[in-house]
Amino acid sequence: MEHKITPRAENYGQWYQDIVREAELAENSGVRGCMVIRPHGYGIWEKMQAELDARFKATGHVNAYFPLFIPLSYLAKEEKHAAGFAKECAVVTHHRLKTVDGEVVVDPDSKLEEPLVVRPTSETIIWNTYRGWIQSYRDLPLLINQWANVVRWEMRTRLFLRTAEFLWQEGHTAHASEAEALEETYKMLEVYADFARNVMAVPVVRGKKTPGERFAGAVETLTIEAMMQDGKALQSGTSHYLGQSFSKAADVKFLDRNGKLDFAYATSWGVSTRLMGALIMTHSDDAGLICPPKLAPIHVVIVPIYRDDNEKKVVMDEADRVFAALKSQGLAVKLDDRDNMKPPAKFFEWECKGVPLRIEIGPKDVQNGSLCLVRRFVANEEQLPEADRRKAKKSFVPRDQALESIKPLLFETMQSELYARAEKRLWARSKAIDSVADFEAYFKGDGGFAWVHWAGTGEDEEKLSEKYETSIRCIPLEEDMPTAFRGAGTCPFTGKPSTQRVVMAKAY
Amino acid sequence: MEHKITPRAENYGQWYQDIVREAELAENSGVRGCMVIRPHGYGIWEKMQAELDARFKATGHVNAYFPLFIPLSYLAKEEKHAAGFAKECAVVTHHRLKTVDGEVVVDPDSKLEEPLVVRPTSETIIWNTYRGWIQSYRDLPLLINQWANVVRWEMRTRLFLRTAEFLWQEGHTAHASEAEALEETYKMLEVYADFARNVMAVPVVRGKKTPGERFAGAVETLTIEAMMQDGKALQSGTSHYLGQSFSKAADVKFLDRNGKLDFAYATSWGVSTRLMGALIMTHSDDAGLICPPKLAPIHVVIVPIYRDDNEKKVVMDEADRVFAALKSQGLAVKLDDRDNMKPPAKFFEWECKGVPLRIEIGPKDVQNGSLCLVRRFVANEEQLPEADRRKAKKSFVPRDQALESIKPLLFETMQSELYARAEKRLWARSKAIDSVADFEAYFKGDGGFAWVHWAGTGEDEEKLSEKYETSIRCIPLEEDMPTAFRGAGTCPFTGKPSTQRVVMAKAY
Repeated sequence: MEHKITPRAENYGQWYQDIVREAELAENSGVRGCMVIRPHGYGIWEKMQAELDARFKATGHVNAYFPLFIPLSYLAKEEKHAAGFAKECAVVTHHRLKTVDGEVVVDPDSKLEEPLVVRPTSETIIWNTYRGWIQSYRDLPLLINQWANVVRWEMRTRLFLRTAEFLWQEGHTAHASEAEALEETYKMLEVYADFARNVMAVPVVRGKKTPGERFAGAVETLTIEAMMQDGKALQSGTSHYLGQSFSKAADVKFLDRNGKLDFAYATSWGVSTRLMGALIMTHSDDAGLICPPKLAPIHVVIVPIYRDDNEKKVVMDEADRVFAALKSQGLAVKLDDRDNMKPPAKFFEWECKGVPLRIEIGPKDVQNGSLCLVRRFVANEEQLPEADRRKAKKSFVPRDQALESIKPLLFETMQSELYARAEKRLWARSKAIDSVADFEAYFKGDGGFAWVHWAGTGEDEEKLSEKYETSIRCIPLEEDMPTAFRGAGTCPFTGKPSTQRVVMAKAY
Repeated sequence: MEHKITPRAENYGQWYQDIVREAELAENSGVRGCMVIRPHGYGIWEKMQAELDARFKATGHVNAYFPLFIPLSYLAKEEKHAAGFAKECAVVTHHRLKTVDGEVVVDPDSKLEEPLVVRPTSETIIWNTYRGWIQSYRDLPLLINQWANVVRWEMRTRLFLRTAEFLWQEGHTAHASEAEALEETYKMLEVYADFARNVMAVPVVRGKKTPGERFAGAVETLTIEAMMQDGKALQSGTSHYLGQSFSKAADVKFLDRNGKLDFAYATSWGVSTRLMGALIMTHSDDAGLICPPKLAPIHVVIVPIYRDDNEKKVVMDEADRVFAALKSQGLAVKLDDRDNMKPPAKFFEWECKGVPLRIEIGPKDVQNGSLCLVRRFVANEEQLPEADRRKAKKSFVPRDQALESIKPLLFETMQSELYARAEKRLWARSKAIDSVADFEAYFKGDGGFAWVHWAGTGEDEEKLSEKYETSIRCIPLEEDMPTAFRGAGTCPFTGKPSTQRVVMAKAY
């Protein structure tokens, strides 16, 4: 059972795939590049949605829904945007099928006058709609979010990380001034960073993208960058200030406070099911998924242990009581009463699925009035010898004390330990690099986040990416830079002076 | 302001459109047949989703997500299903665009080997996935639901009621026996009926569809049928027993308890944004939307009334207190403090948007320690002379008493009054009909639900539909038939004996 997951050290890519499969999170479908999100994976995504949605609403946003299809002409309107997105996408060209000689085929007579693109992102269709909603500064700001599926025809796909169809949310806001729009852009970056850190327990570096890495059509792209266990970066959320390019392309004008016509100022921001990949690759181990308690679809699994019907009766009575007590606390509890499976097999299964806490109940525990709590992880386990790990995760606690302690154990202790562990890893694999030789050596070795002074052009950046397969992940906000990394210096690639270090890394 | 909505009596179809527009629920988009669901409309849909989702989970279902695209060959596998659905649908044939002479066009080199159909419903792709999940009776039942968008290329569209793209949920379950699958089919019908009646305040008749009206590929289709204010039926939710046709088409076999291989037994069931149409047309009046309190995105709107700054100070202080008090009760409250709008304009706007309760606060109310409560509707208003209606909706209640009474007023009194009023209408426009002459006269007049004995064939049914533009909405469950309508009789159209009456009506 344990051996279905390839160890990280052996093959990191395979380890990821194995976890996605064995924890029943997602799988490939019969449709090229499109995934099926399985119930256990979708359960985590639902919790992410609920947490994000509450944060969007708390910051004044409302949800709406816009069409799946975008007329080709809309997409073509904003030039840079079209260049970035009007490439690999699914195009609807016909609207009818027919049966010919018993075979179902596309009816050539049903060709659309204008092809429709399945949305790769919705700026163009949404701004085309906003034209009817915005006349005066009184209609602004317009703070709207959409939960939707989008399609980008990716050639090389990987479950959650890069799929042709994925689920996401896209915020699209309209403002009366650049200052307000920029404030919104930073506000949503903060919402994403807060969610990543405090809910996903994923440490992130906030920053700006370089012009070459910006969203197609954006004036400024902000990002949160997380580090996976192999030292690679994963862009986990972006917030864009779009200026007036989309309002101009869609002709969205408003009367300002002074009675003058101006084009509205736009932002957009999004996170996607890609976050599932970030979650898996940040926390999990060779036994399977590790899920932060705040996102776990099941918080606690109870496994009853007995040898005969007498023991079963005693144990199941206690298991039912514990189940009810935890459920009444609002916890998601699973009582695994399957008869056709031995306890160790159950342990492996729930460990693999990332349930944060297991309660084993045997006749002796009932007799002692205690519960055997087994944590999915402990803070320092990676430093412990293999033999001591199991012991460190297990504790016997008097029943009533255990029932009181589980909520804080999950949502305070374990949640913050998980973050601390990931944060430690991030900084352990972050390095200030000041010469090309060191840079090359760093990425020939294990690599990680290289904090490098940069003063190159877009062209320099492209060449660098090609040569080393790294990219500038972001120009970090000062608050997210360790003190030692702050300040001006010299770009090792160009020899030119630089005002601050950027983060370079290989990336997903 | 009031006159933006065409009265029902004048033009019912226009009245519906006017409400959808003026209450800012939805609008047509630049994409043929696709709608934009505006924030106020989406807010109601979100509440519907939350209520339904909780009921699905309480009955043991979990959510998952399956691909948007269905390979043409999948759709063709189940013959009857293909005949029903593989007609008008959006077909993706290419996966790339390119720029030629500055114009964005479909790249002819990007033609897909197999066209992809944008899902009109997901039975085929889901059962193709289930093949990998079902081996033994231990894997059953599989109780899965999906919230998704689907596309059916409708020729004549109408906001919410019939759109090319719509949002829905589709449950797809697999069972080890016909009996279990049928039980599920009825259970979900019950979930839908309970939701319609107790949350939407929409009375429905539960029943079976005739073979001609069944879902393409179903062995049995169950339905809930609601009556709109014009007497037409609106199919509001369906639950299908699919037998083994989809499991056979996708080759989903399982080892049963006796070690024998069998094909799994399937159900599917769904409701869609069509329910928004049912909601609007069941309850609303000539002033705009009426929304049952349990689905209202805003429960209470507070409108402060003052003439000068001194009054404003006093009134706004009280308004803030009332706002905080109601919010702390978990109510969705809106304090309409817009300075650029007079109170009557605010009244009209919130009435039009269907907010169930308005609180007007003026200096006199503060002085008296009372609140002026204005209900969006009262039980018997349609029987009152116009002049008395406003009075009947308005009451002055001592402040503390008012604050305590609002929750029961909304969720008990008003919610049940709304249901009672709709139910009264349903039975007032339901008639037992026993001759062809009466039938013709009934539908030449106002019409409604004709409860008629029926013993015709499918062919008879088709002819009848063509002749009268009516259809058999359902063969009602006995519990949903008034006693007077129960029992055997004679079919007036064929003269043959019939075991029970069916519901015939014009329909949306």
